[in-house]
Amino acid sequence: MDNKPTLYTSLSPTLLHLYDLSNSVVVIIDVLRATSTIATALYNGAKCVIPVDTISRCIELGRQIDGITAGERDGKVAEGLEYGNSPFEYPASFIEGKTLVLTTTNGTRLLQMALDKNAQEIITGSFPNLSAVCDHLIEMKQNVILGCAAWKDKANIEDTLFAGAVIARVKEYFTINCDSSHIAEAIFEKAKKDMFEFMKKNDASHYHRLMDFGLEKDIRYCLTADGANVLPLYKDGKLMMKLLP
Amino acid sequence: MDNKPTLYTSLSPTLLHLYDLSNSVVVIIDVLRATSTIATALYNGAKCVIPVDTISRCIELGRQIDGITAGERDGKVAEGLEYGNSPFEYPASFIEGKTLVLTTTNGTRLLQMALDKNAQEIITGSFPNLSAVCDHLIEMKQNVILGCAAWKDKANIEDTLFAGAVIARVKEYFTINCDSSHIAEAIFEKAKKDMFEFMKKNDASHYHRLMDFGLEKDIRYCLTADGANVLPLYKDGKLMMKLLP
Repeated sequence: MDNKPTLYTSLSPTLLHLYDLSNSVVVIIDVLRATSTIATALYNGAKCVIPVDTISRCIELGRQIDGITAGERDGKVAEGLEYGNSPFEYPASFIEGKTLVLTTTNGTRLLQMALDKNAQEIITGSFPNLSAVCDHLIEMKQNVILGCAAWKDKANIEDTLFAGAVIARVKEYFTINCDSSHIAEAIFEKAKKDMFEFMKKNDASHYHRLMDFGLEKDIRYCLTADGANVLPLYKDGKLMMKLLP
Repeated sequence: MDNKPTLYTSLSPTLLHLYDLSNSVVVIIDVLRATSTIATALYNGAKCVIPVDTISRCIELGRQIDGITAGERDGKVAEGLEYGNSPFEYPASFIEGKTLVLTTTNGTRLLQMALDKNAQEIITGSFPNLSAVCDHLIEMKQNVILGCAAWKDKANIEDTLFAGAVIARVKEYFTINCDSSHIAEAIFEKAKKDMFEFMKKNDASHYHRLMDFGLEKDIRYCLTADGANVLPLYKDGKLMMKLLP
């Protein structure tokens, strides 16, 4: 008898309804750059990160709680907000002890969907906190859904790579009857030697979008493991660092 | 200026709405085994293949036009139908000059969706007719959507592999700004030396389903290029062989 918990990968928010979230840990994955930035801000001492879905809500909440407002639209800091989506905007010297109110499009929407579907637990994943995510999933012994935020509902390479990286690390602890997971792992195995080069060579749409804004440094950081190795756990509207055992 | 037509890959019917089909050639891909069987039946001289969505419609139509009724549910010939989904059931000695009325779940549904979305042209693709599909796409110089039938809306390895195989052959003729296509091609490049082994090693769900029914021969045939190299073109409710130039 195989009593391992299950693991599935949802390559796009549009596919999330195919999976039962109510008894699963859902990992929200938005590698470039929302979940990388969330891990980084918490690692650097932010009190918490509050993800919100609109710019107006971000401004309003930022004012109410005296938080840092951040978010981009079309690659630029959104009008009315103070900061952008880059993890490099949140060093400890700036973010320590503060609350970051962050609006993103794909990642926030997916998180809201997971809430609506009664996910048992929601955490965020990115290469900067790869090990924390994997350690937690192994420790929890619960079913897992790796939820890629994708780009406007289309699967993207970098979120798929991260799903593959998690699977490569944790697969022996789970029953994985899911072709999307196997595709993700195979892609990761092919890419892992140099993921930046893989993104470039395979014409990843986000690679071009960010390179055009001069953000090579962001891409490289967001594809590197464990630069901000904390576990952001969603509870009562906030992402807070879960203390690792 | 880049005036090449575009190419996109839809990894699941659930994602098809993200693409504009009205000015595109849509390739319906259901490698195991619907579209492989369609190519094979036409290659072996079937007059046409009529895809229908229900067993009752299959029985009714088969009676009306004196056609061969075929289709499976849960891996067995469906009750009331005569034949199954295996390409080996349709040698020339049997199918030549006849009309095959075929009901499948994933493939037929996707074809219906493409019709509803006013696809400019619908063809079916599988490894047995890989070259015919690629030659046609290159010749047409139209936008292309590679539509994977998937399995109950979840992406599957074999349809993704076929999309990748097409892309590897035709990519220089198209503008491909589509991460799903790049993922498919990367997977295909990794798998192409031995796709059967890749399916086995990566625990493809369809691999197990068919192996459990003793259908290794079907899998191997359906992963082999150009065994039935014709172009099935959908018109007026039927798939007929398009004569190649």
